[in-house]
Amino acid sequence: MSKVITSRKEDYNKWYNDLVLKSDLADYSAVRGCMVIKPYGYALWENMRDVLDKAFKDTGHQNAYFPLFVPKSLFEAEETNAEGFAKECAVVTHYRLKGDPNKPGALMVDPEAKLEEELIVRPTSEAIIWNTYRDWIQSYRDLPLLINQWANVVRWEMRTRLFLRTAEFLWQEGHTAHATKEEAIVETKQMLEIYADFAEKYMAMPVVKGVKSESERFAGAEDTYTIEALMQDGKALQSGTSHFLGQNFAKAFDVKFADKTGALEYVWATSWGVSTRLIGGLIMAHSDDQGLILPPMIAPIQVVIVPIYKGEEQKEELVNKIQSIADQLKGMNVRVQVDLDESRRPGWKFAQHELRGVPIRLALGLRDLANDKIELARRDVQTKELYELNGVVDLIPGLLEDIQVSMYQKALKFRDEHITSADTLEEMVDILDNKTGFVSAHWDGTVETEEAIQKETKATIRCIPLDNPLEDGVCVYSGKPSKQRVLFARAY
Amino acid sequence: MSKVITSRKEDYNKWYNDLVLKSDLADYSAVRGCMVIKPYGYALWENMRDVLDKAFKDTGHQNAYFPLFVPKSLFEAEETNAEGFAKECAVVTHYRLKGDPNKPGALMVDPEAKLEEELIVRPTSEAIIWNTYRDWIQSYRDLPLLINQWANVVRWEMRTRLFLRTAEFLWQEGHTAHATKEEAIVETKQMLEIYADFAEKYMAMPVVKGVKSESERFAGAEDTYTIEALMQDGKALQSGTSHFLGQNFAKAFDVKFADKTGALEYVWATSWGVSTRLIGGLIMAHSDDQGLILPPMIAPIQVVIVPIYKGEEQKEELVNKIQSIADQLKGMNVRVQVDLDESRRPGWKFAQHELRGVPIRLALGLRDLANDKIELARRDVQTKELYELNGVVDLIPGLLEDIQVSMYQKALKFRDEHITSADTLEEMVDILDNKTGFVSAHWDGTVETEEAIQKETKATIRCIPLDNPLEDGVCVYSGKPSKQRVLFARAY
Repeated sequence: MSKVITSRKEDYNKWYNDLVLKSDLADYSAVRGCMVIKPYGYALWENMRDVLDKAFKDTGHQNAYFPLFVPKSLFEAEETNAEGFAKECAVVTHYRLKGDPNKPGALMVDPEAKLEEELIVRPTSEAIIWNTYRDWIQSYRDLPLLINQWANVVRWEMRTRLFLRTAEFLWQEGHTAHATKEEAIVETKQMLEIYADFAEKYMAMPVVKGVKSESERFAGAEDTYTIEALMQDGKALQSGTSHFLGQNFAKAFDVKFADKTGALEYVWATSWGVSTRLIGGLIMAHSDDQGLILPPMIAPIQVVIVPIYKGEEQKEELVNKIQSIADQLKGMNVRVQVDLDESRRPGWKFAQHELRGVPIRLALGLRDLANDKIELARRDVQTKELYELNGVVDLIPGLLEDIQVSMYQKALKFRDEHITSADTLEEMVDILDNKTGFVSAHWDGTVETEEAIQKETKATIRCIPLDNPLEDGVCVYSGKPSKQRVLFARAY
Repeated sequence: MSKVITSRKEDYNKWYNDLVLKSDLADYSAVRGCMVIKPYGYALWENMRDVLDKAFKDTGHQNAYFPLFVPKSLFEAEETNAEGFAKECAVVTHYRLKGDPNKPGALMVDPEAKLEEELIVRPTSEAIIWNTYRDWIQSYRDLPLLINQWANVVRWEMRTRLFLRTAEFLWQEGHTAHATKEEAIVETKQMLEIYADFAEKYMAMPVVKGVKSESERFAGAEDTYTIEALMQDGKALQSGTSHFLGQNFAKAFDVKFADKTGALEYVWATSWGVSTRLIGGLIMAHSDDQGLILPPMIAPIQVVIVPIYKGEEQKEELVNKIQSIADQLKGMNVRVQVDLDESRRPGWKFAQHELRGVPIRLALGLRDLANDKIELARRDVQTKELYELNGVVDLIPGLLEDIQVSMYQKALKFRDEHITSADTLEEMVDILDNKTGFVSAHWDGTVETEEAIQKETKATIRCIPLDNPLEDGVCVYSGKPSKQRVLFARAY
């Protein structure tokens, strides 16, 4: 197979797009900004979803489903939230088509089927959900209410990129209601920890946990917690957020509960979400110029086995042996694929599985079989070694674990090497332009300074890390006093 | 707990709505015709989805995800399909809101953000998918393409009912592409069998498998296969359909493949789907005036355990014993809930779990504990018996199976008793009005007669059963010759 993807050095953005398309994760669609998630990409998403879903349920959350549409009057009830999303809302205005009298066979929107009130296609569901919670919450006994939804959402972004920023995307959104502020904050932080654990343990993608500055906060939140990952080009990717919403939505939708004394109080809220954007992060955190590198814990295929033979001689024996290896691996819950496609040569298959990031490739030829050997290739470090045929199956689970850990360590080293302190704006720009990555710098805490720095450097405050050490200093921009460094970066 | 749901005899439709709302399956929403699927209802849907998803994957299908929106020009490409859905399409015409200058704090659709081409919110995805398949299918090696999607769809129905007919609903839609007509027909029938198996084995809901008459066919299909279930009020419910689409979509979207000789041929297609409507069928097939009766195989909670005590004395011992029973059941993969809510009395809990259709209720009191006994209540037949405390856990899996089978047998008996032959239109009306159920009658095969019968009887042809015996007769309406009886019913 000839080289199918642009190298990172040549054009990082093109490398990314080539990779997504050629590895069969996703495809463009006929709808502006919307993508098709192909079976291989969707299988990856299913694996991610299943891990997260279990973590949510293990912490007492239940899934539910709320309407796709939000009536405009509800949408605008929480003003900050509505303003934050107003510019990217897809709006349903009509509910019927009819034959176009001017074009036989064509349809047109029926002007007589105009909705009395426009419906917003949900960009996020706080409004429709809190409007429902008003009916569900009367007393402290109804709290906490811990609900999650797996759904599609639409944000009409002008510049879109596969997985990273699409007009429609898949996500989960948790929406919880609590009797006290403290409990809601505990929930907000708990969900951030679940996201961080998931990113690090399953995606092998180290993250910085922190709090957003005011201007990067979710519209309608009191505080937004975030996990920020670092991509190989040194840009940051916001990978998951957990919001403490205070009583903003409870007040906007009049959701009160009677406490044990019978007094009525507004409910405290959180919301939290991760989306198919995570797949974009996964790709950019690990992959190389040969293709994807997928962490074993969520890879749709963990091991692929390729037979090598010419003609039909001994083919049966080879294929039987391979099937037996595959069956043993399946019995150990390893996700294995046997590639028996007769229309492709082994070299083509090797490149294809490399492109698709399968963590381990086994190749068995006739000579190997005669010598009781089998070739094992690791996708992450590109090693190839001969192993004893009979012992190889038992080695696989340990090797998959090694790969998972090694991928995380590599990404962690890269991330840690790319957190650099800067004490002046010039230093900051130099780091961003040349070394790239996170810049740890003092900031005076004002929105104005943040905006000015963004204008000069194209970097934003990614977060104020949790457990950030306090340190006296002066703001790199204004020279005003500051008590701690925050993390800046250019970001997706 | 006082009686919370209307009896079937009093008002069947109200009974159904009361049941859905009071058993916490779903709720109305602020959006006309759209419902909220509550956690208990969603857990039921998840169980159904997981079984179906496995059956699809076991037969070689893969999941993928296609855009929510269909550009109007694509939507109208397959004319029959477009016409079939045009009257119930939600249409996105704008992509931005802005502040309303006349109402501070309110938003309005920004007239400057009008889409060049309107987007249809998918009522079904053939158009967007076949437009994509054109790029994915070049050669016979790309076939068969076996893809399924779990998604939300929108059909702007004028009269809606919780689960049975909602403007937005959740479903799965399979869309497959094949090299030959025969292969596509085999696929169509295979998926019908999967649906029938699922309905009968998991939902304990017997179905008649058959083919739709021309006027009941899916818009754009050559043939629609259906499973038809019978509800307790004697009305039929179309519960799943599998369509042989011929080459209609391949031609509309120009999807051709090169066969082994290199010749270009249009691809053959199928599509098939079941939706959250199935939950409506499940409810109406089994439940009674006390509430839901859920088949164990898909019930979110299979066994609930309620402790009975006054005061704190011996409470700990009781609760420990109950927890130990629950742990043993969990170890056997039984979905068990321990109801320790101290704010409710046992009688209230009993009624609540009955209302929610939990198949088995265990109740353990202090006297029982002293006697090594435990009370077991079956929801389906409303029996209550004392069992040996120590042996009860081992009996549960068998009992759950018994309940599953017994529910199916009961529904099957009811269904079989409600298939009645009629030889005249008067007989037919009499059966439909009084006995209710399916009417097996001769029909001359014309659309005109079908329409006339519907007008006179409010019944439609539900299907021409598969493997229908041939029998000479005359049409109940026109008196013209007929070769077989077909099944009529009033339907949801």
